[in-house]
Order: sequence, then C-alpha cells, then structure tokens
Amino acid sequence: MRVGIIGGSGFAGSTLAQILTFHPDVELTYISSRRYVGKYIHQVIPNLHNKTRLKFDLPENDLIEEKCDIIFTAVPHHTSHEMIPDLLDLGLKVIDLSADYRLKDLKKYNEYYGNHSSPSLFKDAVYGMPELYREKIKNAKLIAVPGCQASCAIYALAPLINENLIDRKKIIVDSKTGSSGSGASATEASHHPIRANSIRPYKMTGHRHTAEIEQELSNICGEDVKVGFSAHAVNLTRGILGTIYSFPLNEIDERTIIKAYRKFYRKEKFIRFRKMKAGLFRLPDPKLIMGTNYVDVGFELDNHIDRIISLCALDNLVKGTAGNATQCLNIIAGFPQEKGIKQIGMFPY
Amino acid sequence: MRVGIIGGSGFAGSTLAQILTFHPDVELTYISSRRYVGKYIHQVIPNLHNKTRLKFDLPENDLIEEKCDIIFTAVPHHTSHEMIPDLLDLGLKVIDLSADYRLKDLKKYNEYYGNHSSPSLFKDAVYGMPELYREKIKNAKLIAVPGCQASCAIYALAPLINENLIDRKKIIVDSKTGSSGSGASATEASHHPIRANSIRPYKMTGHRHTAEIEQELSNICGEDVKVGFSAHAVNLTRGILGTIYSFPLNEIDERTIIKAYRKFYRKEKFIRFRKMKAGLFRLPDPKLIMGTNYVDVGFELDNHIDRIISLCALDNLVKGTAGNATQCLNIIAGFPQEKGIKQIGMFPY
Amino acid sequence: MRVGIIGGSGFAGSTLAQILTFHPDVELTYISSRRYVGKYIHQVIPNLHNKTRLKFDLPENDLIEEKCDIIFTAVPHHTSHEMIPDLLDLGLKVIDLSADYRLKDLKKYNEYYGNHSSPSLFKDAVYGMPELYREKIKNAKLIAVPGCQASCAIYALAPLINENLIDRKKIIVDSKTGSSGSGASATEASHHPIRANSIRPYKMTGHRHTAEIEQELSNICGEDVKVGFSAHAVNLTRGILGTIYSFPLNEIDERTIIKAYRKFYRKEKFIRFRKMKAGLFRLPDPKLIMGTNYVDVGFELDNHIDRIISLCALDNLVKGTAGNATQCLNIIAGFPQEKGIKQIGMFPY
Amino acid sequence: MRVGIIGGSGFAGSTLAQILTFHPDVELTYISSRRYVGKYIHQVIPNLHNKTRLKFDLPENDLIEEKCDIIFTAVPHHTSHEMIPDLLDLGLKVIDLSADYRLKDLKKYNEYYGNHSSPSLFKDAVYGMPELYREKIKNAKLIAVPGCQASCAIYALAPLINENLIDRKKIIVDSKTGSSGSGASATEASHHPIRANSIRPYKMTGHRHTAEIEQELSNICGEDVKVGFSAHAVNLTRGILGTIYSFPLNEIDERTIIKAYRKFYRKEKFIRFRKMKAGLFRLPDPKLIMGTNYVDVGFELDNHIDRIISLCALDNLVKGTAGNATQCLNIIAGFPQEKGIKQIGMFPY
Repeated sequence: MRVGIIGGSGFAGSTLAQILTFHPDVELTYISSRRYVGKYIHQVIPNLHNKTRLKFDLPENDLIEEKCDIIFTAVPHHTSHEMIPDLLDLGLKVIDLSADYRLKDLKKYNEYYGNHSSPSLFKDAVYGMPELYREKIKNAKLIAVPGCQASCAIYALAPLINENLIDRKKIIVDSKTGSSGSGASATEASHHPIRANSIRPYKMTGHRHTAEIEQELSNICGEDVKVGFSAHAVNLTRGILGTIYSFPLNEIDERTIIKAYRKFYRKEKFIRFRKMKAGLFRLPDPKLIMGTNYVDVGFELDNHIDRIISLCALDNLVKGTAGNATQCLNIIAGFPQEKGIKQIGMFPY
Repeated sequence: MRVGIIGGSGFAGSTLAQILTFHPDVELTYISSRRYVGKYIHQVIPNLHNKTRLKFDLPENDLIEEKCDIIFTAVPHHTSHEMIPDLLDLGLKVIDLSADYRLKDLKKYNEYYGNHSSPSLFKDAVYGMPELYREKIKNAKLIAVPGCQASCAIYALAPLINENLIDRKKIIVDSKTGSSGSGASATEASHHPIRANSIRPYKMTGHRHTAEIEQELSNICGEDVKVGFSAHAVNLTRGILGTIYSFPLNEIDERTIIKAYRKFYRKEKFIRFRKMKAGLFRLPDPKLIMGTNYVDVGFELDNHIDRIISLCALDNLVKGTAGNATQCLNIIAGFPQEKGIKQIGMFPY
Repeated sequence: MRVGIIGGSGFAGSTLAQILTFHPDVELTYISSRRYVGKYIHQVIPNLHNKTRLKFDLPENDLIEEKCDIIFTAVPHHTSHEMIPDLLDLGLKVIDLSADYRLKDLKKYNEYYGNHSSPSLFKDAVYGMPELYREKIKNAKLIAVPGCQASCAIYALAPLINENLIDRKKIIVDSKTGSSGSGASATEASHHPIRANSIRPYKMTGHRHTAEIEQELSNICGEDVKVGFSAHAVNLTRGILGTIYSFPLNEIDERTIIKAYRKFYRKEKFIRFRKMKAGLFRLPDPKLIMGTNYVDVGFELDNHIDRIISLCALDNLVKGTAGNATQCLNIIAGFPQEKGIKQIGMFPY
Repeated sequence: MRVGIIGGSGFAGSTLAQILTFHPDVELTYISSRRYVGKYIHQVIPNLHNKTRLKFDLPENDLIEEKCDIIFTAVPHHTSHEMIPDLLDLGLKVIDLSADYRLKDLKKYNEYYGNHSSPSLFKDAVYGMPELYREKIKNAKLIAVPGCQASCAIYALAPLINENLIDRKKIIVDSKTGSSGSGASATEASHHPIRANSIRPYKMTGHRHTAEIEQELSNICGEDVKVGFSAHAVNLTRGILGTIYSFPLNEIDERTIIKAYRKFYRKEKFIRFRKMKAGLFRLPDPKLIMGTNYVDVGFELDNHIDRIISLCALDNLVKGTAGNATQCLNIIAGFPQEKGIKQIGMFPY
C-alpha cells in the first residue's frame, strides 16, 4: 500500500511520517511541505535520521496521483476543504486530519470555523473513530480524523451516554493538554519562558471541539447532548487528561458503570480500562500512554454530591491524531488494526 | 513582636521561616525541628544562607514560653491538637497551620481525620481567612490557617455564594496542584521520575478539604452548600489552579458576576480580579502569582450550557499556607496587612 | 531619583520594571516600548497588575530628558550604540544592558557583533560589575551591564585568576542556561514543544560572551587569558549554572582556593560562597537563587587529574542583567547596594 | 530463547521487562522482585497493562534454572557478585546490569565500590559494549553491561583515542543526566519539589564511572588514559548529554575528526553521527533519542583555544542500560542486533 502525506512538517503530519516510515505493510512514497520542499524529511523530523531518504515535495496532484493509493491531508482547516474535492476526484481515498469534515451540520461548521466550500461531502465523510464507526470506515472514501481533545472526551463519555446513565445536558469536560496540541508554529503564547510552568485556562468557553463531542454523543443516544468544555494548557509537551464530570440520572453503583465501560470497549485493543485498587497509577494519567496509540479510561463515583468523575488519557499526536489516522488506514486496507501502532512507550516517561 | 515556629523543617514551616526572617516588625526567635535539632536553619532551608544564625531547637514549652509572644504550629494534624491546648495554657496566641482546628463539627473532623483530643477548642478557634474573618482574627487566641486547596476553592466561590447566584448543591471543583502540596517528606509517589511529566488524578473523591470548603461556604449563605472536589497533581513544584464549575440559579449576565467579585473583595489587597479582554494572561494562572501572597480570581460565563467557570490561582505555600498565616499575624499584631508579604515574584517564572 | 527604561517589553527591561517599581528610593517615571506604546505596562508584565499605572511611551529624547535623571537602555545591541551618544549629550547617565559598550577593543566588537558607530565612548564606559569596578561605577556616565553568562563565568574564575592559581590558556566554561536567556521574542527554537525536555548544545564555540570574559579576566591579572566557552540550553525558564574547569599551575590544596574566593568576595553581599560538607545542596545550584540578585560560587578540587571545578549559579535576568543594573544604579546614586534587590526567592522553587 | 530477569522492579529491570515483552524472538519467562513477589508485573510497570500475565517470583535458583536459558541480573552492585557465581554454575549465561564485573582491576573495584567476593571471574567477564567487544560478547558466559554515563563518555571519546588525536591526560567529561539515573527508590534528593527545576552538580569528583571509562579508553589505545568526570542532575526524568572537552595533540581539522568518528562507527546501526550545518538540532540532544537504543555523537572543533568539544546523547535506561543489554543478548543468541530495540521514540518528546 502506497501512502502519502500532504502537510508533513506540522506535528500531525510529522507524527504520521514517523509512524508510517515503520509500518510494515505500508510504503510512505510521498510527503509534501511547501516550506521545506527539496529537503530530506529527517532534516525537519530529527527522529527519522538514517531511517528514510524521502524528501519533501510540493503538494501537486499529479505527483500524488502517481505515487499514492491513499493520501493523508495534515493541513489546517480551510486548506483541507479547498484541496480534498480534487483529491477525491482523482480516485484517491483521503484521510483528513483537519476539522473540515468532522461535522455533519453546516451551521455548526460555520459557527465554529467559518465558511466551507464543499459541504456536500459532509454526508459521505466518516468520522474516523474506529470505536464508533469501524464498519463505515472500511469503505469510506473520506475519513475525518477526530480532534484530539474531542476524542478524549468522547472516549470517557460514550459508554455512559450509550447506557443512558447521566444527565445529557449537564456535562462538564475539564481538559488538560500539552503544548504540542497547538501545533508546530511558534507563537508568543508558545514561547518557552511564557508557556512553561503554567496552568493556563486558555479556552474556558467556545472551544471548537465542543461541536464534534456533542455531535457524536448525540448520535450514540439519539438525543441532544450538551457539553460544557473547558481547555487548560499544562506544563507538558504532549498528552491530554480529560476529567469529565457528569450527574447520574438515577441512583447508580460502581458495577453498573464498570459494566458500561467494559461492554462498550470489549473488542477495542487500544482502549484500556484503568481503575486499580492499589498502586501509584490507579486512574488514567497521560504519563502512562505517552508516545502510544493507547487510551486509558477510568472513573470514580462520588456519592457525596452524586456525580461521576470519568477520566481519559491519550497522546494528542498519536491516538489523538496520527496514530488514530493510521488505525483508520489499517481498517480501510484490511490490515490488523494494531499494525504499526502497537508500540508502547517507555516508562518512566 | 517575638514569634516562633514549631515544625520548621516541613514546607509550611520553612516557608514561614523564609517570610518571617525578613518581616520588618517581627523577630523570629525560635524554631523547632526534632530531626534537625542543633543545626543552623539555613542548612535545611538553603534560601536563608547568610540571612540568619538561628538554629533548630527542640519543641519544648519552656523555651517557647520564654522566647515567643506568638507561636506558629506547622506540624501534622493530630500532632497539633496534642500540642496546642498546652501552648494556649501558657498564654500564647497560636496560629496553627494544620487541619486540626479548621472544622467546627466534630463529626466532620472524625470522618475526615479521625479522633480529636480537644474539640472543646473548636468554638473559639477562628478560621484564618482574613477575607472572611478579619475582625474575629484580631482577637483570636487560636487561628486555624485554611488548607491550600480549600482556600483556592473558597476564594473563587465565596462571591457567587454570597450573592446567591448558583446552585448550592451542584458545584464542581477541579483542582490542579504542584508537588510541594504533599509536603517535604519523600515518598514513592513524589519520586521525581515518577511524579514528573504526569497529570495524576490523585484524589477524585473524598478529599479532606471538602469539609472546610463546605463549612465556610455554608456559613456565608446560611444554607447547606455541597461541593464535589477533585484534586490533580500537575507537573509543577508549587502553585494551584482551581477551575470551579457551577450552575447559575437564574439567567445571569457577566456584569452581575463581575460585581459580585468586585464587591466581595473590594477591600482586599491580596485578591486580584483578573479577567482581561486581551493578552496572553486573560485569566488566573499560577505562573503569575508564584512565590507571592496574591490570589488571582476570574471567571467566564458560558451560555452554551449555562454554567459559570470560576478560576482561582494561588501559591499553595504562601497564600495557601505560610503567607496567609503571616497575614493573620499582621492582623493580630495590628500591623498593616501587607507587612512582610507584599513581595511579588519575578516574571517569567 | 527619577529613572526610565528604554525597551521595557523585553525580558531585561521588564525585569528592571519589576524591580524598580518596588525600589524604595527610586521613581520609575518613564518606560518605552514601540510595540506596546499607550498600553499599561501591567498588560505586558502581568506581575505588575495593580502595582503601577505607568504606560509605555515612545522612545523620544524630549520625554526622557524631562522625566529621567538616569536612563536604562534595554534594547538590542546596535540599537544601543545608535541611541546612547544622544542620551549622553542630554546630560543623562546611561546604564546600558546591551553588549555595545562592554568591550574595550573595537576589533573584538567587530569580530563578535559587527560595526559600531561610537567606539570613542569605549574608554569612558565602565563594565558594570560592582565586584570589579565599584569605584569607577560611582562616577561613570555610561555603564555597560555585563552579559549574563559572562558574569557567571567571571564570578567563578576571578578569584583563581587574581591569585594566579590556574593555567590561563586552558580554561573550559560549560554553561547551562534557561530559556529566558534568549529573550522575549518567540522563535522556532523557543517553541515550547521543541525547547522543553531538551539539553541543547546550542553554542559550543564562538559564543559572544567569550570576549568579555577574556577581557575582564585579563584585566585582573594583567596577562592574556583565553577561555573555551560552550553554552547549553537546559529545561528551565531561568537560571544559569556555570561549571568551569581549569588546571592548577602548581600543586594546590583546598584551603588555598577557599581563601582565594573568601578574599576576593569578602565585602560582597551578593556573592555567597557555597561549599557545604553535608546536605542536599552542597554546591551552587540555580534552584537556590532563582528570582534573586544573589550569586552562589563554590568549587571542588580533583586530584585525579589535577583540575579545579568551579561552579557559579545566578539568575540570568536578575544578577545576570536587571538586578545587577539596579545594583549599579544604587552605587551611582549613593544608595546602599542592596536597596530594592535584597529579596530572596521562595524555596523550593 | 527463554530469558529471565532478577530484580525486575528497579528501573533497569523494569525497562528490560518492557523491551523483552515485545522482543519477537524471546520469551520472558521469569522475573523476580522480593518486594512485589506474587504481583502481576503490570501492577508495578504500568506500561505493560494488558501486555503480559507474568508475575513477580522470588529469586530462587531452581526456578531460574528451570525457566531460563539466559538470565539478566538487574540488582545493585554487591548483590550481583554474591549471586552470579551460582548462576554461572547452573550453566546459565548471565548478563549483569550492575557494576560488579565491569572492571578488570580489583584495586579499582575496591577503591570505587569496596570488597568483591568473586574477582576470579573478572578475566572472563566481557564488558558489554558491542561497539568494542562484539566478537567476545558472542561467546561470553558473563556480560557486564556498561554504566550509563560511562557509555556516554566512551562513545564520544573512543574514536578520538583510537586515532590518537587528543591529550590522554587532560580529558574533561561534563555529564548531564536525568533523574531516573539514580534508580527507582525515593530519597530526599529525588523528592520532586527538591529535584525539579534544578541543575545540581551532584558528583563533581570521584564518580564511579570514571574507572570504567578510563579502563576502556586505555584498552583502545594501549596507553594510560585519565578522565576528569563531573556529573550534573538536570531537570529531566531520563536522558544523558555528555559534553566532553579534550585537547588535540597536534594541529587538526574537522575532516580528520569526522573521519575518526565515521570509521569507528561505520558498521554500528545504533550510533548516529550528528553534525548538521543547519536546523534546530545540529548536534546531539537527548530529546532526539529518548526511549530508544540510539546514540547520537557529534563534535565541534574550537580553534580559539584548540579544544575539541565532543557530544554524546543517549537514553540512560535504554542504550545506557536495558536496551544495550538486549543488544548483547541479540549478539549472544545470533539474532540481528536490532531485534526488539529498533523502535524510535516520538518527536517532539
């Protein structure tokens, strides 16, 4: 299988390049970056030193058509929706890492992201979360890889919503994310002396991922779900912890909730339920999944004010982006789902 | 004013020593540590190198009586309630940094901390939060300095509770704290390779500070307040950010909430309202108050699911413990409240 | 004393603003920033929230002449030498934080920095290191504040050079610096996900501070001193540790070296000799001086290969820049040297 | 191939367990830990969650003999030399991760580590550095895996010593290491609030790794080599950067040095030469090799004082310990050397 990446110098694209270079059943034949065209990719992605002789190309459709069976688009939103219709016309399957085809409701897209040039594709695009849409992904022509913080919230909430255990209108997501989540471009906010040693409440309301979280949770239960999402930037380069607070509809015990998680994820190799009775790591912590495609979910039930605290930890660039995109590729290509992405990181991170 | 510290080698006591050594109207005449008795305090508190010739003494009442007008007890809970009745009998004023006299309800103390040998002192002990009890602190014989994470939650919530703006039974406190909060003793959990680079949800339910948060908020409004408190250990040595989610009782606008904060804290020099329209630091962030007695509070109103996100940042060892204890001392002694604690830290931290 | 700062939004200028705002005998009357003109300075320097109503002005000589007795120039090199002759012509005393007047040898300046428009001022400019030039600073019209990493190396080496203890041609300086050393402007290299968790050997040879280290050490001994300076960027926002390796000329014992340090710094309040026999902090560590004007120096003698390992820790923005500039101001103004800069930080940092 | 680990709960042993669990040609059949006997290893090594059902056993020779063909000993020095003779008597091949069989000179061992119970084994033990002793490793019965900081220094220096390019008596090693280097046991020095945000010069002279560095470099050139080794603890959990300063014997140019490195490591897949002309990562930086068995080496030549600055970055727990031990296993077993250890980490770390 020959695959390519448009936008290979951002963090999403470069993480994909790191994964696909070592994928045993895939050949990374093409990667583009306007900025670095002509350079070896290991000059920009230092981990690939000695591992590949690939160079950055221009994003030209002739080249892509010639070299790729499947193309990943790892470009900003808006750039994606301008590019993708033509790529689809070439007969390519497209796995898009931007936000452009995640939402089904144009109004929501307009509200959070602005105008869209090809909303007619919304109905065929598949939200690339294997745990929800494995069957659809198999035959999709256009995959919209979920947002990293959205994934984190959905993984924690889906089982509870699926079993109708919680108040669907009063869900609080307190998201804590590392600095790579905001991309590879330097800004004043990402300047190391400014960004380090902080816990910055950078987006308490109006975060764009709200829309896809609500869309997907609503799809699960067939009812309108509303989420209050708040994002904090913490003192890490990567990793997300989502702490999600919800309120049970009825009296509930731990076993019921454990069952909901076990049932929802019983076939999922990348979703691990973590709720230990002892030890230092009784609940999900990004430290345990850094650099991997694994997701740890867990919860505690608090009888003091009748709330459920659900937790989800994932690596924003792997299961939150490029690893998950690779899992989608594996599904499309008929490979075992863990191909190329089953590596664990090293502990202690 | 001659003051002393019992328990000077823990982080609370050693921070007090750092502050009091430079307090212009106070003489630190005595400091005890069983472990380090006979050593110069700068051997244990390296910041005091060349700044004092004080040595650690044993915690003996004769010495304390002779050398101190006011004594700070910076020992673990249970040790405090065993010591303090005798210290009061000596005629000393006691400022206690443990949890032993914070609660007024023995049942709550028993529930969270176990047995208590002198609950009869509860009625006279004053919760040492100047913003709530300035007048009582002036004449108190026993001050119970609030818990650091409790302070953080109370500062964010008091104005909302005071104006009866929010649902008193559905309050979520998502607390994020640095590693010094768990004290100066090394444990497996605090081992650097284990503790660093993590976001550990270490106490999602049943945190002890819940009791004092509820007690104080209930006192403000005269009604029962319930709080769901969840604590995370983040990748910092010091500092706390509290993100507090609450639900307005009625339709509400930003101005009403701003007024509530402005009114509640209008005379408070250490409480700063932070809600900027622009810039990198629009809301509270511990980075801005590290090493100081300042507290930043702010909020956002989310109409999407009708919630208020209140934020509070403070330094757990200063305004969360030793700085606040010094502020209480200033009130008792009739000094200006900022004496010895008005220093700002350096930016960027 | 009315003082002003040209270039108040960089880290050097903004640290000066933080210090001078609280200096008891100084009034900060003027601060400029082309970029932020018209804004309150606390909008850019968040630590000054509620502490001042000063706004950023344009850098105009009329204003400066009217408002200031002494002016600090905290602008990049080249900008300084274009500005300073006119400021001196106005009769102002100038304390320059750039590199423009540190070197006495135009060739060296040309080699490391390029062209210079007013080298005739070199002979009158005083290298602003109080430990070397206190008397000259008193009456200087133009002070050139030393570079931060240069200061660190000089403090560690001056006593050894002064006593002629080491080989003057084989000195190795291994410098480790936090990220604020490269300024307030965001670059790709300073992007948090890139800069964090690294030990980057960013300037192994040809570092500009080499010239001033050699100039000052040569001045001390009247002989040519050569230094091999190598700079590493470590995972901190501020602080420098210099580890300096030198080779004794003759057989030597610890006492001789201790005496050399004690003698050289015996009157210096900001230089602390740190060589403990026990404890966790036996030698200098930036953790102990963060946010302060203190410098810790110490050493070990290694008989295994006959070398001296000298260590120096300082805060690059305080004693390495703005704090030291304030110390120079105190000397010029006849204030006690510690005025406004004797604050210690909080431990643990 | 059935392998076992004695001492599986320390960082060396647990890293080995993480590697060997995924090694395609190896079965990890046995792992011991006195402290955790009976527990699943994933309870202590959280990365192995769902990846193995192995439990910790007692370190009993019967068990080991029955279950293992090769045994790794990941126990402290002294414990190793007490255990290993019996293990060898069972006919097992032993790969020892302690310091007990690294040195060939009993006097040196006594000087740095104390008494030794089986020095007669020194002559047969092979220093487990494949780059130096590949052929001997193939048939060795006892492998002594090198120390992590020693490896780092040797990799940087071996090519220069091999070509007789530098003064063998004036070599300075400035080593910077993360916190996992001091092991899995919590101490006061490793307590997070104390250890974080520091650059601690913890062992300026007398570091134990000096002996093995000198032994191995002397072996290469057949002459006595002396090294001044100084170790700093930096603000990272893992990774080492060695900055090595040496003095060329004769006039030298860059090409000669490049050739020395290229030649020495031309067949080595894990040693990468890193000396880029452009980009952010022109020289070795631990950030680039975290979690991997790769070693980056590079250098700069400084004509200013005629010195060579050699740099080496490696992961102390992988190529510095457990990864390198696995590479030795691969050599002994006749597997391709990269089996099970060719994984790269994720960038940005």
